[in-house]
Amino acid sequence: MLFFTQCFGAVLDLIHLRFQHYKAKRVFSAAGQLVCVVNPTHSLKYAPTRCAAAPASTEQGLLPPCHHREAVHDPQLVPCTCPLFSCPWEGHLEVVVSHLRQTHRINILQGAEIVFLATDMHLPAPTDWIIMHSCLGHQFLLVLRKQEKYEGHPQFFATMMLIGTPSQANNFTYRLELNRNQRRLKWEATPRSVLERVDSVISDGDCLVLNTSLAQLFSDNGSLAIGIAITTSKVHSAEAEM
Amino acid sequence: MLFFTQCFGAVLDLIHLRFQHYKAKRVFSAAGQLVCVVNPTHSLKYAPTRCAAAPASTEQGLLPPCHHREAVHDPQLVPCTCPLFSCPWEGHLEVVVSHLRQTHRINILQGAEIVFLATDMHLPAPTDWIIMHSCLGHQFLLVLRKQEKYEGHPQFFATMMLIGTPSQANNFTYRLELNRNQRRLKWEATPRSVLERVDSVISDGDCLVLNTSLAQLFSDNGSLAIGIAITTSKVHSAEAEM
Repeated sequence: MLFFTQCFGAVLDLIHLRFQHYKAKRVFSAAGQLVCVVNPTHSLKYAPTRCAAAPASTEQGLLPPCHHREAVHDPQLVPCTCPLFSCPWEGHLEVVVSHLRQTHRINILQGAEIVFLATDMHLPAPTDWIIMHSCLGHQFLLVLRKQEKYEGHPQFFATMMLIGTPSQANNFTYRLELNRNQRRLKWEATPRSVLERVDSVISDGDCLVLNTSLAQLFSDNGSLAIGIAITTSKVHSAEAEM
Repeated sequence: MLFFTQCFGAVLDLIHLRFQHYKAKRVFSAAGQLVCVVNPTHSLKYAPTRCAAAPASTEQGLLPPCHHREAVHDPQLVPCTCPLFSCPWEGHLEVVVSHLRQTHRINILQGAEIVFLATDMHLPAPTDWIIMHSCLGHQFLLVLRKQEKYEGHPQFFATMMLIGTPSQANNFTYRLELNRNQRRLKWEATPRSVLERVDSVISDGDCLVLNTSLAQLFSDNGSLAIGIAITTSKVHSAEAEM
C-alpha cells in the first residue's frame, strides 16, 4: 500500500513539474530554449567569507589568499574554496564542478540559451536557487539568492559566475532576462569568477537586484522564470578577428 | 569687477555642461540621440498622497476620487492633481503640462530617443530629477527619485508616466537603459498614467530600482546617464493593423 502511495506521489510531482515546464515555455516562447525547474536549496545560515580568514591547511598544502590565486599558471590548478555558503570544501578549480554536482547535487545543463525556473519564491530568506550551465567550452554557475540585506526586507540577487579565473571570465558576457505582465528587465554583465565567491558579489551589489514587489510582478504562481544567455564578449571577439 | 566674476562663473558652468554632454554622448554613441542634462529639484519633504484624502474644493468644483476619473469622456478634461510631491495644485489634464513648465520649471524635450543625464547623484534623499518628453503626439514625464524606503539605505527609482489617462498609457511602451563599465540594465514597461501619482508607482515598486552600489557602478563622476525610448506597444500596433 505504501509503495502505491509513493508511486502516486511521484506521478503527482511529475505532473506538477510538467505543468511548470509548460508555463515557462509559454513565458519564453523562443524555439529551442531549454527550461530547467530549479528547486531551492536548504536555507542555511551564512558562514563568514573565508577569503578574510587565515589560509587553511589542506591536502594540497597552504592555500594562498584569494587575490593571489592567479599566480598559478595552469587555471585548472588554481586553488579555490566552494563558492556556496556554509561549505568548508577546499580544492582546485578542476574539481569544483564535480564537488558541486556530488556534494550539493547541483544540475548541469547544456545549451546557449536556457530558462531557469525558480520555484517556491515565498520561502523565507536566506534561500538559494542554483544551477550550472555548460556552454562555449566552460561551466558557469547561476545563483539566485533571497537575502535580507535590510532586516525585514528580503531582496532577490541573481548573478552568473564562471568556474574559471577572473581573466577567463572577462571573455564572456551573460544576460539575465525577466519578462512578464508587459514588463521586461534585462541585466547584462561580464561574469565574475567563482574564485570571488557569491557572498562578495552580492554584498558589492554587482548583480541583478529585485525587491519583493518587483519579484512578485515577474513571478507566476510562486515561480520566477529567468532567461539566461551567454556569449563571448565583443572585446574578445574583436581581438580574435584581428 | 563683480560683473566679470559672474561672467567667468557662467563660462565655467557652460564648459562643465559641455563636458557632461560630451561624456553622455560618449556613453550613448547612437547617432541622433539628444542628451539632456537634468539638475536635481529641491529636496522637499513628502506630502501625503492626496488620492487618499477627501476631495478638495477647487474652481472646477469637487474632484472625484482618483480611480473614478476616467468617467469623464474627454481625456483633456479629466481632473488631476500635480504629480509631484508637496505641490497643492489641482486642475485638468490639459493644463498639467503648462503647470509643470511654469511652476516647476521642468524642461520639455522632443525626440524618439533621448539621454537623460542626472547630475549630483550624491545629494541626500529625498531628491527628484525630472524632465518631460514629447513624442508620438503625447507628453511623458520621466522621474528619477532618490528615496530612503529603508532608513539609512537610499535607493533610486526611475519611472515614466504618460500625461494622459491609464487607457491612453496602455498604448505605449517605454524603455530605460543604463550602460557603463561592461554592464547594461534595461527596463521596459507600459507607462503609468500621471493620474496615478509618482508616489504610488514608487511604493508599488513597479519601476526601475537601483540600490546605491549599482547606481555608483553606472554613474560617471556623480552623473547617471539613462537612455530613454518610447514606442507604441505591440498590442496596439497589431490592433491598428487589423
